Amino acid sequence: MDNAIKTVALDELAVGDRFLSREFPLNTEQIKAFARDFDPQPFHLDEAAAAQSFFGGLAASGWHTAAITMRLMVESVPFADGLIGAGVEISWPRPTRPGDVLHAESTIIGIAPSKSRPDRGIVTLQTDTFNQDGEPVQKLVSKILVFVRGAGGLP
Amino acid sequence: MDNAIKTVALDELAVGDRFLSREFPLNTEQIKAFARDFDPQPFHLDEAAAAQSFFGGLAASGWHTAAITMRLMVESVPFADGLIGAGVEISWPRPTRPGDVLHAESTIIGIAPSKSRPDRGIVTLQTDTFNQDGEPVQKLVSKILVFVRGAGGLP
Repeated sequence: MDNAIKTVALDELAVGDRFLSREFPLNTEQIKAFARDFDPQPFHLDEAAAAQSFFGGLAASGWHTAAITMRLMVESVPFADGLIGAGVEISWPRPTRPGDVLHAESTIIGIAPSKSRPDRGIVTLQTDTFNQDGEPVQKLVSKILVFVRGAGGLP
Repeated sequence: MDNAIKTVALDELAVGDRFLSREFPLNTEQIKAFARDFDPQPFHLDEAAAAQSFFGGLAASGWHTAAITMRLMVESVPFADGLIGAGVEISWPRPTRPGDVLHAESTIIGIAPSKSRPDRGIVTLQTDTFNQDGEPVQKLVSKILVFVRGAGGLP
């Protein structure tokens, strides 16, 4: 019996296909740990400094929101050879805060088979990340390299 | 005496201003640790699986390259009220590999003062991340909210 999640390859995808992630709860310690490693600015590290800043309180790095979104995409978008990004556009319409519970909703908005290499193509995926109040905290459009079944090298 | 790094505010910036980061050495354990947390795909976690994949060997998550680049930007782009991103565009022209030594070169390519709020504006910053061979591993264009001196809330 095959207990693995069913994967989909390029020839099995359609514009409009949607993928919903699980929920991801985010706390203060995670926000500060990511910021210490990758975005050590006062509004991501210190409540008092953040209260005086543009954010008006502690906020996660946008790159942390992006990284969490990628985790949720890896778990919920079952492309057979993985998610290999060629490029992305991101906007952060509002901050992610301690205590937020995030989830990601992904929709295929474009499929462009390669003209020169028939085993692959570029899928354009729109992924919106929402907090527990249904407010978008990140809007992401990704160009993802996708292969036809068996061409991408992963088992 | 003021030993702090000299900062610059919106009214002190010009198109063409450039900022060069330090070097950041990246190893296998860092690549796998980031991938375990945020991008658990075989080509970021396992040498044997990566060798069979599109990447032909272990590669860092593009989001790891982006997060490292942010760290280098925070250290090298001295905007007085920090780096507050409204949105970005990213492409990854080649993978980042274990043993790579990265640095980031940032250039102001646009300054748009707000028409409604004279204390702030949007600075467009192009940041290219290079490996030790001078090859670009990431191209980033960021829209950053920047304040005139004293308006952004940070001390």
